[in-house]
Amino acid sequence: MINVTVWNEFRHEREDEEVKAVYPQGIHNCIKDFLSKDEELNIRTATLDEENCGLSDDVLNSTDVLIWWGHCHHDKVPDELVEKIYNRVMCGMGFIALHSAHFSKPFKRLMGSTCSLKWRDGDRERLWCILPSHEIAKDVPEQIVIPVEEMYGERFDVPTPDELIFIGWFSGGEVFRSGCAWNKGLGRVFYFQPGHESNPTYHIPEVQKILTNAVHWANPNFIADEIECPWVPSQEEELLKETLRSR
Amino acid sequence: MINVTVWNEFRHEREDEEVKAVYPQGIHNCIKDFLSKDEELNIRTATLDEENCGLSDDVLNSTDVLIWWGHCHHDKVPDELVEKIYNRVMCGMGFIALHSAHFSKPFKRLMGSTCSLKWRDGDRERLWCILPSHEIAKDVPEQIVIPVEEMYGERFDVPTPDELIFIGWFSGGEVFRSGCAWNKGLGRVFYFQPGHESNPTYHIPEVQKILTNAVHWANPNFIADEIECPWVPSQEEELLKETLRSR
Amino acid sequence: MINVTVWNEFRHEREDEEVKAVYPQGIHNCIKDFLSKDEELNIRTATLDEENCGLSDDVLNSTDVLIWWGHCHHDKVPDELVEKIYNRVMCGMGFIALHSAHFSKPFKRLMGSTCSLKWRDGDRERLWCILPSHEIAKDVPEQIVIPVEEMYGERFDVPTPDELIFIGWFSGGEVFRSGCAWNKGLGRVFYFQPGHESNPTYHIPEVQKILTNAVHWANPNFIADEIECPWVPSQEEELLKETLRSR
Amino acid sequence: MINVTVWNEFRHEREDEEVKAVYPQGIHNCIKDFLSKDEELNIRTATLDEENCGLSDDVLNSTDVLIWWGHCHHDKVPDELVEKIYNRVMCGMGFIALHSAHFSKPFKRLMGSTCSLKWRDGDRERLWCILPSHEIAKDVPEQIVIPVEEMYGERFDVPTPDELIFIGWFSGGEVFRSGCAWNKGLGRVFYFQPGHESNPTYHIPEVQKILTNAVHWANPNFIADEIECPWVPSQEEELLKETLRSR
Repeated sequence: MINVTVWNEFRHEREDEEVKAVYPQGIHNCIKDFLSKDEELNIRTATLDEENCGLSDDVLNSTDVLIWWGHCHHDKVPDELVEKIYNRVMCGMGFIALHSAHFSKPFKRLMGSTCSLKWRDGDRERLWCILPSHEIAKDVPEQIVIPVEEMYGERFDVPTPDELIFIGWFSGGEVFRSGCAWNKGLGRVFYFQPGHESNPTYHIPEVQKILTNAVHWANPNFIADEIECPWVPSQEEELLKETLRSR
Repeated sequence: MINVTVWNEFRHEREDEEVKAVYPQGIHNCIKDFLSKDEELNIRTATLDEENCGLSDDVLNSTDVLIWWGHCHHDKVPDELVEKIYNRVMCGMGFIALHSAHFSKPFKRLMGSTCSLKWRDGDRERLWCILPSHEIAKDVPEQIVIPVEEMYGERFDVPTPDELIFIGWFSGGEVFRSGCAWNKGLGRVFYFQPGHESNPTYHIPEVQKILTNAVHWANPNFIADEIECPWVPSQEEELLKETLRSR
Repeated sequence: MINVTVWNEFRHEREDEEVKAVYPQGIHNCIKDFLSKDEELNIRTATLDEENCGLSDDVLNSTDVLIWWGHCHHDKVPDELVEKIYNRVMCGMGFIALHSAHFSKPFKRLMGSTCSLKWRDGDRERLWCILPSHEIAKDVPEQIVIPVEEMYGERFDVPTPDELIFIGWFSGGEVFRSGCAWNKGLGRVFYFQPGHESNPTYHIPEVQKILTNAVHWANPNFIADEIECPWVPSQEEELLKETLRSR
Repeated sequence: MINVTVWNEFRHEREDEEVKAVYPQGIHNCIKDFLSKDEELNIRTATLDEENCGLSDDVLNSTDVLIWWGHCHHDKVPDELVEKIYNRVMCGMGFIALHSAHFSKPFKRLMGSTCSLKWRDGDRERLWCILPSHEIAKDVPEQIVIPVEEMYGERFDVPTPDELIFIGWFSGGEVFRSGCAWNKGLGRVFYFQPGHESNPTYHIPEVQKILTNAVHWANPNFIADEIECPWVPSQEEELLKETLRSR
């Protein structure tokens, strides 16, 4: 079983009728619902206004893959929690940042760059898959048309992705590296651009497929207790001494 | 002219006779001396115990490439200064981290990872060039033997380098990605492993060649004032309106 | 099930008593034996001296992952067969090149480079894993000591690997990118350096683990019938016409 | 001085009035003219219908950077010449493939992949620069609008570029990795998508800037005589013997 925690800011869906109409139970529960069809996944949710943002040490330390959606209240996430998330990724936890989470504290901490971009509401996106052999692209068509989506445009100020899987085309004239993967520490990080709160993007089956694949891809080989910086003895010196003794 | 600032912790060379014998004027002045042979470079130095660590806003904002050597007192560099350095790299400044600067605050901030490794004093290193077509490898031989150098061994916990230029071999049995390059923001970052304070590594002509090349490589195309995240209008909508009007 | 075909030159093991002692049934059958412990794999073998090198169209077109070991008789493999292998990789088939297969025709065709290197028999290798989060590194220790192995040394003249997973250390002073992965067409290619015919390298459990993992990693999402270069109509023009009609 | 040879198929411009109107002296001379403004460049041209395709051994062996434009007559270039070009790139020569040269023999030989794509005449392109710190992007704006250009769309079946510098947006709905760089052998390869024969793309100052930058970037550190695969002695064994003798 892969232990997945879906974190959501969960403010828009309670405060804005338009958003509530699209995600009545919140974006996190929409994601939980479609992920739950995969029997290998064990899924919890956590939100900003819960105690400890819903991410107690117990929850975090039993999470294999953390999915993050945030937008207007990135600053409400305590720095101490951000550091714990960062450390857990270093030790192996997968991290999937969705849409406006490009500016979330954990993602920026991991990227070590500004994560800036261009933006505009209410565009139309064509999402092109350029690496169909990737795990995240399995059973995903070469193009997904998203009728209404917030435009995010280049330059996306992130480190060069280790793998660029999707490029977005927007009707207003922009392009975007919409699906990017990085190795970070012992963990894996995936950023996926579609998913504005007022658009029903997470109801699209192909998007659900991508995110389900991403969870499997981000599931770690193992999670270390800590990352050390050890002094180590020479291994060859012992061999040399043996050689010397034997002559 | 490329404005280079060589930053050095400059404690070992004042406190330890063995180190002072190797670098009587400090590592920074040794580096300044060999870089000065390149007439395109305009070189300043800065050290930990100067006011503002020698890096006033004026100095930092007129630096194109910052070279950094630090070891035992990384924590003495104020977080506020680290953030200024980070921001300047985002805007285009080059950053070259030397040896134990793998654990310096600016480098860790830029990498977004632990930068851990294995280590052991007093090994012998063979530095292999695996990308001889790179600017940093120009006129550099395929192998440089460093008679005594501190071993740094894998796993080096950094993001996958955009370019891996040198791999180190150590007599004790380890390997290391000893010369790594990354694009970060509008800037370029180079990490170079050799250069322990008690070894005369920076006196080796081939090492000097590598670092001189690295300064040219890291010199930015331009330096931006800031990195914005702007709303932008659709460019195509205007074209569509024109098309509609013309029919 | 993943259909794996293990191809072997199979001359050394029949002509050289020393090699026969190490691999009495041939390298291909040694590999087949350890892969057979994985119930998801369906394994066949093929050798140079069989009809069509054992790779009829039927065999090739039902192969998901092709493993290749060759050394002294690369030139005996017909160019026509090489082109069929290349085309099948373009369409998705995985290809795993072992040791001296760095100079095999299919590998050189896929790399588009000379694949040259330095070499020397009878060295000792330490194989370091630098990307433990990779599928191929799952359950593999950070270091594998191979008591006797042929040295392959840098510069390894291959395109920059998409993923560098293992670096080899040799007692004679060299390093090597010993485990490299590339995306090629719709297929995935893995090169693994250890495995000289007179050394019992493929009997080492950790090496067996790596190759078993590599088969799973190289197993394609899908295999296409052919790679086309099609003219496509504008999708947006139709939308524009609809917009114009509706106004 | 950098010795540049601009190769052109030079058939369209002689056979098609529309193309002749755009490039009266041929695409090669248009490129030669704007490159000639750079005093560091020494420029020759060569065309398909000259003897040896204009690329005698003397010409090829004194070329530092070869620029290639071809379209309908790729098959007229002899395989023997292709192999010579390939070998020279392995030894260090830069190679810049323009537009429909994606299907040229030398480019396909170097890529080791099909280089297929989608296409459609007469679209409008927005070329976005996503790596402004790259040498090829120096003094290039973040967006270049090309009023009429042939659409090339993903999936572009090339190996993952070592550096992705430009992404093209097309009004018909497609995206393309329009500016890609690879290290190949000791040489550097750049592919640039804009430049259909009937469009005045090479008259656009920003495009001229990109190609001039690309020549400098592709200029090799050095050109080797050949790429060998040598046996080498152990360097450490001698050191070990000395150690043994001295004890």
